Amino acid sequence: MTGSRVGDYRILQEAALRDYLAGLPEIAALLGGAPAGWAITEVGDGNLNLVFIVKGNRGGIAVKQALPYVRLVGESWPLPLSRAHYEYLALSRQAELAPGLVPALLHHNETLALTVMELLEPHVIMRKGLVAGTRYPRFVEDITTFMARTLFFTSDLALTAAEKKDAIAAFAGNHALCKITEDLIFTDPYRVAAQNRWTAPYLDGLAASLRDDMELHVAISRLKLKFMASPEGLLHGDLHTGSIMVTEGETRVIDPEFAFYGPMGFDVGAVLANLLMAYFASSGHERAPGERQAFESWVLQTVEKVWNGFARKFLGLWRTEARGDAYPVSLFAGDKGAARLEIERQAYLQRLFTDTVGFAAAKTIRRIFGLAHNIDFELIEDPKSRAISEARAVRLARGMMVEAVAFRTIADVTGAARKLRDWQPELSG
Amino acid sequence: MTGSRVGDYRILQEAALRDYLAGLPEIAALLGGAPAGWAITEVGDGNLNLVFIVKGNRGGIAVKQALPYVRLVGESWPLPLSRAHYEYLALSRQAELAPGLVPALLHHNETLALTVMELLEPHVIMRKGLVAGTRYPRFVEDITTFMARTLFFTSDLALTAAEKKDAIAAFAGNHALCKITEDLIFTDPYRVAAQNRWTAPYLDGLAASLRDDMELHVAISRLKLKFMASPEGLLHGDLHTGSIMVTEGETRVIDPEFAFYGPMGFDVGAVLANLLMAYFASSGHERAPGERQAFESWVLQTVEKVWNGFARKFLGLWRTEARGDAYPVSLFAGDKGAARLEIERQAYLQRLFTDTVGFAAAKTIRRIFGLAHNIDFELIEDPKSRAISEARAVRLARGMMVEAVAFRTIADVTGAARKLRDWQPELSG
Ligand SMILES: Nc1ncnc2c1ncn2[C@@H]1O[C@H](COP(=O)(O)OP(=O)(O)OP(=O)(O)O)[C@@H](O)[C@H]1O
Ligand SMILES: Nc1ncnc2c1ncn2[C@@H]1O[C@H](COP(=O)(O)OP(=O)(O)OP(=O)(O)O)[C@@H](O)[C@H]1O
Repeated sequence: MTGSRVGDYRILQEAALRDYLAGLPEIAALLGGAPAGWAITEVGDGNLNLVFIVKGNRGGIAVKQALPYVRLVGESWPLPLSRAHYEYLALSRQAELAPGLVPALLHHNETLALTVMELLEPHVIMRKGLVAGTRYPRFVEDITTFMARTLFFTSDLALTAAEKKDAIAAFAGNHALCKITEDLIFTDPYRVAAQNRWTAPYLDGLAASLRDDMELHVAISRLKLKFMASPEGLLHGDLHTGSIMVTEGETRVIDPEFAFYGPMGFDVGAVLANLLMAYFASSGHERAPGERQAFESWVLQTVEKVWNGFARKFLGLWRTEARGDAYPVSLFAGDKGAARLEIERQAYLQRLFTDTVGFAAAKTIRRIFGLAHNIDFELIEDPKSRAISEARAVRLARGMMVEAVAFRTIADVTGAARKLRDWQPELSG
Repeated sequence: MTGSRVGDYRILQEAALRDYLAGLPEIAALLGGAPAGWAITEVGDGNLNLVFIVKGNRGGIAVKQALPYVRLVGESWPLPLSRAHYEYLALSRQAELAPGLVPALLHHNETLALTVMELLEPHVIMRKGLVAGTRYPRFVEDITTFMARTLFFTSDLALTAAEKKDAIAAFAGNHALCKITEDLIFTDPYRVAAQNRWTAPYLDGLAASLRDDMELHVAISRLKLKFMASPEGLLHGDLHTGSIMVTEGETRVIDPEFAFYGPMGFDVGAVLANLLMAYFASSGHERAPGERQAFESWVLQTVEKVWNGFARKFLGLWRTEARGDAYPVSLFAGDKGAARLEIERQAYLQRLFTDTVGFAAAKTIRRIFGLAHNIDFELIEDPKSRAISEARAVRLARGMMVEAVAFRTIADVTGAARKLRDWQPELSG
């Protein structure tokens, strides 16, 4: 891993990137052969940044460079380059805490807002696999390890209060990225906003009902406040299935540029929400009724196993690795103390579950009425069929947000999802 | 207001302080006359710092200098000088937000960890007045304004998320002072700790029962976690009646060196706890039974008015000054939205009340079993009588901490306190 600061920011397109990489001996050696022979392809299907795949005759790398604006929208929506540095900081920390579950970091240049990392190959973006109905046997084990370890070890259960405050401060500057989440997830879908869109005309009525639903507005506002003012641990901050690359046997979490200290349930809820959306979208991808039944059962089982596995691993870490200032061991000495602390651990996880349910709902609604949609639904070609899938997801999400505490276990969530599998919503238009 | 950085830190005793002040033209002019004629007295009855009163023939000032260690304990307990800078930052912010309720800032020297401020005269430390049975008619109005304004305007209700994150980061470095609170308030009184003390032998049994009370240990641990990881607003951080200077007609809050972004209930709870302790201590200061009845009624009325006045002012600010990112107005448009938001405001205050009840309990227990006691109890000469007063306060506090939600209104708190006024605890020894 090398690092340098060279001159001012400039966008590195193919030729400039080739020269830049040729100047990094370790990277050049890794690629192999003459720089002129390296194959450089821009693959950034993302919304925000440039991503290049570079291949030499020995190996390959991925190069990510931040642009000073939102790529999807253009220069009219500026976004600070510093996000690349926060992504790098988060990636470094995640690599320490969850080794092997993020791409290896090879080089970072803060001035250029550029990071070179391991090329993930033949990994695919998990969301694409889910749309195709592919199951990933390794996923539960890996994502639960990733979340349990990155969240636990950055929390007050593992850090001293001083370390925690320093860590919060180190990510405080990433507020422009947080602001995107605050607006696009926690505000816009619930009001008239130019960037909103949905499957019209079928969901027009539903969109209007969300804008008029004051119980929902209170619930989303409480979640927004929690997002802004509950620095429980270092979040990935954008942990959807488009930020996870998988093979049958491997899982890698990418793209933590939204990282900051926030409420743990936001990350866990993101994973659950995206699985639930894959579930509701699945019927829209059927070519024959029931064709994807095995896949759909796998998705709901995965939802259950993700929560249960996460909770089990988080509790396990708490039992053996708690060196932080919260819940001091000296207050829970002896058998009686140990027993009482164990009950409190369960209660803590139950509170975290309630948060998770609410955040999962927020993540769902934004994908159906906000700016950024996902291909799970978007690739359902028939708009009516798409709207039906989306309406089912929204019905579940509305309940999860407004009555989060009524969902006591993850089986309550999957049970409710299963009941909605064939529910026929009333559509507009 | 002038500011400078001159050389390295050194402790300024009388002569050096005189020279230093003589070199500050605005301060010298304010004092008046020749520096040699200035009367300098060290009055720091505090635990941590040096405080000098300096008087010239025109006016007077107070000068506070941090020592690199805890004054009460000595050089064996080092404490960073940077706390003086955080105190200065907090004082500046409080002066903007609650004008006239803190001493005016006249000069700050970060290197010397020294602040010059307005001399408060003839103000007395409120705790001393309460021990003497004095009532302060202006207090409720002022302290509720101070708390409502400093907490509201530093919260997510008034700030953008970006401003809030920057503000949190600006105080993150004050963690050594937070650590004192974490240890002395939220941990030590509930375990064997060398620095603990209590009115022995009478409270030996009670002290042991607290160390063995796992419900209490869970409750104090939840409060500790909230203290560490809920940056709701800029706290004074040590808002007891020893940090408030009063006359009949004026109130000034001093000594915000524990300032940081934390849970609002911690400040409000501090004020309530210290009034409740004044109430329970009062019988110990009687020379004749019932002598201080009018004072005691005033104290309990004050407890009620402090909470109710704070809540009313905080709600009022929320209704008219909410320019922050939380609870966006665009989600609560129209009469229906306004009505629903108003219900949510009440619910928010109810949650804050529950926190306040818990933190008030924590503040009480630490004064009876921890390192730092208060003169309300300490000046009760007869140890048995002191133990009785303390045991009553602890009985209320234990209930408030373990069943905080059972206290729905502040009248539930004062009602419970009144019932304990003549309760006869079983004492040890
Ligand atoms: N290390 C890698 N190896 C292989 N491909 C990668 C790697 N990192 C990123 N990619 C590819 O580049 C795409 C965009 O990457 P990334 O998600 O990090 O960028 P982004 O601009 O932040 O996207 P978005 O904002 O949409 O999440 C990924 O979807 C993936 O296809
Ligand atoms: N502006 C002022 N005018 C008059 N007296 C003051 C002023 N500031 C402080 N004092 C006096 O000095 C004492 C100590 O001040 P202060 O509480 O700020 O110091 P401290 O060392 O932080 O104390 P502690 O740690 O015990 O709270 C006060 O109790 C008060 O008597």
